Amino acid sequence: MTLTGDLFIAGERRSSEQRFRAYDPAKGAEIEDVAFAGASEQDVADACAAAEAAFLPYSTKPLEERAAFLEAIADEIEALGDALVERASRESGLPAARITGERGRTANQLRLFAKEVHDGAWQKLRIDHADPARTPPKPDLRLRTVPVGPVAVFGASNFPLAFSTAGGDTASALAAGCPVVMKGHSAHPGTAELIASAIARAVEKTGMPSGVFSLVNGMGRHVGQSLVADPRIQAVGFTGSRAGGEALMKIAAARPRPIPVYAEMSAINPVILMPEALKARGDALAKAYVASMAMGAGQFCTNPGLVLGIAGPELDAFSQVAAETLTGQAAQVMLTEGIYKAFEEGKEKLAASPYVEKVAEGAEPAGPTQGRAALFTVAGKDFLADPVHLHEVFGVSSVLVRCADLEELKSVLSQLEGQLTATIQVDEGDYESARALMPVLEQTVGRILANGWPTGVEVTHAMVHGGPYPATSDGRTTSVGTLAIERFVRPVAYQDLPEALLPPVLREGAQDGVLARIDGAWTL
Amino acid sequence: MTLTGDLFIAGERRSSEQRFRAYDPAKGAEIEDVAFAGASEQDVADACAAAEAAFLPYSTKPLEERAAFLEAIADEIEALGDALVERASRESGLPAARITGERGRTANQLRLFAKEVHDGAWQKLRIDHADPARTPPKPDLRLRTVPVGPVAVFGASNFPLAFSTAGGDTASALAAGCPVVMKGHSAHPGTAELIASAIARAVEKTGMPSGVFSLVNGMGRHVGQSLVADPRIQAVGFTGSRAGGEALMKIAAARPRPIPVYAEMSAINPVILMPEALKARGDALAKAYVASMAMGAGQFCTNPGLVLGIAGPELDAFSQVAAETLTGQAAQVMLTEGIYKAFEEGKEKLAASPYVEKVAEGAEPAGPTQGRAALFTVAGKDFLADPVHLHEVFGVSSVLVRCADLEELKSVLSQLEGQLTATIQVDEGDYESARALMPVLEQTVGRILANGWPTGVEVTHAMVHGGPYPATSDGRTTSVGTLAIERFVRPVAYQDLPEALLPPVLREGAQDGVLARIDGAWTL
Repeated sequence: MTLTGDLFIAGERRSSEQRFRAYDPAKGAEIEDVAFAGASEQDVADACAAAEAAFLPYSTKPLEERAAFLEAIADEIEALGDALVERASRESGLPAARITGERGRTANQLRLFAKEVHDGAWQKLRIDHADPARTPPKPDLRLRTVPVGPVAVFGASNFPLAFSTAGGDTASALAAGCPVVMKGHSAHPGTAELIASAIARAVEKTGMPSGVFSLVNGMGRHVGQSLVADPRIQAVGFTGSRAGGEALMKIAAARPRPIPVYAEMSAINPVILMPEALKARGDALAKAYVASMAMGAGQFCTNPGLVLGIAGPELDAFSQVAAETLTGQAAQVMLTEGIYKAFEEGKEKLAASPYVEKVAEGAEPAGPTQGRAALFTVAGKDFLADPVHLHEVFGVSSVLVRCADLEELKSVLSQLEGQLTATIQVDEGDYESARALMPVLEQTVGRILANGWPTGVEVTHAMVHGGPYPATSDGRTTSVGTLAIERFVRPVAYQDLPEALLPPVLREGAQDGVLARIDGAWTL
Repeated sequence: MTLTGDLFIAGERRSSEQRFRAYDPAKGAEIEDVAFAGASEQDVADACAAAEAAFLPYSTKPLEERAAFLEAIADEIEALGDALVERASRESGLPAARITGERGRTANQLRLFAKEVHDGAWQKLRIDHADPARTPPKPDLRLRTVPVGPVAVFGASNFPLAFSTAGGDTASALAAGCPVVMKGHSAHPGTAELIASAIARAVEKTGMPSGVFSLVNGMGRHVGQSLVADPRIQAVGFTGSRAGGEALMKIAAARPRPIPVYAEMSAINPVILMPEALKARGDALAKAYVASMAMGAGQFCTNPGLVLGIAGPELDAFSQVAAETLTGQAAQVMLTEGIYKAFEEGKEKLAASPYVEKVAEGAEPAGPTQGRAALFTVAGKDFLADPVHLHEVFGVSSVLVRCADLEELKSVLSQLEGQLTATIQVDEGDYESARALMPVLEQTVGRILANGWPTGVEVTHAMVHGGPYPATSDGRTTSVGTLAIERFVRPVAYQDLPEALLPPVLREGAQDGVLARIDGAWTL
């Protein structure tokens, strides 16, 4: 497939005078093959109007058809073959093997949501039968969820497939019955065009209304701002920086009718080295720690940006092995020039803190846009003295916090902002003291791991990729896993409706196979 | 029990120099028996600190004990006997019979949430077992919800029991495991004190931590503002005016760590008269309409403030019967002087619209704070010409919209703001055209009723007392019914945790009786 650089507005390709080019971070140069259209206000408005027009036709399709649509998107993405892997790799600087894995994850995610559409429990079916004999008479009440309406999705740069054009936000919004207007990420416009073309083919093949998906691009902020402000948009999915997420939250809150923004933003993902675990396998932990922080050039939302341990010879040894391992790390190409620069600035700010010491650095960059790994350390008592220690540095950078004792470690933990994850390295002898930390972790994070590493987010039913502010804008939700669908539906109750006017799934005895709560009892 | 007027800060009674008195709207005079303490900033901070201190001890109590606590509150409220009914009636101007009914509803609501705590499905238990053979190995993931932390609740004036100190917000927050700091409504401080004393006794009898409930009062806005801004508060429940709810939303959004506000605010609750139903039983509908709008002096969030029908002789007849019925209505005492004045202003503004005609008025007031019923009418084509037609007028006031045809009616409906309810009066001959309205209603409201009236909100599993903005601040939720508990929990995932560190309910085979999703399958 040849790229044209056009927008996708409800199945139509559309060009514009405003053009921009993709960027190859490994070469440090623009990719010259095609110029991409930037959307005008009118383009955004047209995409939103098409999404609104598609909403009822799409949301009222039988659930089997909705599921088949999601599966068709997965098939069409796979059918793009090597062209997709090559383009995404070139635009992101990520190796082809990583992109290939991410493609599998993206397709599986769409198929999982197709299954979830069938499962149907997200409809929250509830029936309370009438009791006319009661004083006052008890009405018949039935509840289901309905999709909220058109959803705006902002792709992330660091997962050009799994968290972007047909990523988790798009998949869960479509699964919920909501059309999607995608703000393509300007870091991978060619990848976005390929994915959008796959979605467009799936739309056509499964007979979905054309407005169910549109892609609008743009280098500046105005496209995203117009999109979130558009009165037809009813919810927003976003993965990106805290500043970006907060800007969208402000726009959404200032609308005449505010809408929810699901922004996954910022985290430093503490890892706790419990004493017995550290004693038993400090070396292995140090090596695994560096491997986790260096994965994907450190550009994971769940990157372990903070490691906490109790000061002493074991932690010194851990620090030394980590330092040695990191020193050998080759510099890695980062996603964009902007991210590379922010990484350099973030490291400089950390290094400038009077409380922080640089423990080790990776190898010097061997090309443009390459980030040099860095490991810092700070004493537990000083950690809270400067807010710069709390800021996410997106890239291969992490801070080792040397705590005087478990009390100090707990105190540092309890003063962290909301996080996506916390990890505890723990052996049997640590269980009792670890148990005392659990309530703090539960209040602070969305996912608690033991004896693993936070990078890697399984797409499954029990996943929470979320967490209290500022990890996300809405700690009640997850952007990964099947629970993500619940962000895009809301409950409606039906009181004493004649059977003929009830949604079919709420008619008497018509819930078969779908989880329902009937007169308080759960039934399948 | 003699009222003291003191605050309840974590089980301690506390006085203050700032005092205010309750008001008897029927007499139009202050109630002189006792002066009530207004909370200082320090009082609010102390209540929040106590709530935070109580959070872990309370939330980690076995669920049976949490349920027993809710039941004990219900028992203690009933044990207050006539004193509660008399005081609430005197402070609200609502008849004793109505308050007695509301007391029953309040106690039943607490008992329903006690059962819901036992049911446990709100924990959203999910287990995905590991698959070490997969490439890459699949981790073990388990999910449950945790309570969000201390919750601030703002009582409503119009339901001094069911939506106030121990009302739905308090009951659902306590059921979720969250301590509550109550901002008592200044319209019924004596009622609040009685209820708080009942809760305090239940706290003592069931051995709950004292900070699990506090009551802070205050006439101005500063008490509520300090409460919502307090960093220890993690969520807010509110029932009241749109201006009040929006003010709290702004404070919550401006916090360093924003928190959710569940505000139930404003609705005009359209009622649609379908042609066949109107033809068959227009007279009965007109009488029932006036009875619904006059209930509780019109001071229901679900009051039918808007009736829509197709212009013609049947609608004229409906209008005439409604006018006749309304003309006979005695003026009713309203809750507060402020509400009374706002009602008079609201009617004046409506009457001043060049598009609006006053159809009928109720009897003249026979005492202070009595609201005179009013019925207005406007043509469908003019309805959207002036936003004043869309504003809720809290009291016995409603607007009859004469539409040219069903298309115009649908167009009016589709341009309404979010609503708590919509009601459709419908006979079999109307079903086909009614079906075309359903998608519009589903997108606009939280509850759809047929052949009934929206006043009266059943406390049950399938109830939604919510709806899109500005009916509520968060259309994904309900403030009545068992789903209300979900507002005060958030999900946490546990990855590869050793059994010893897992919450007991997530250990292998330990979910007995509680709905859980295991490897994707729902089990009980």
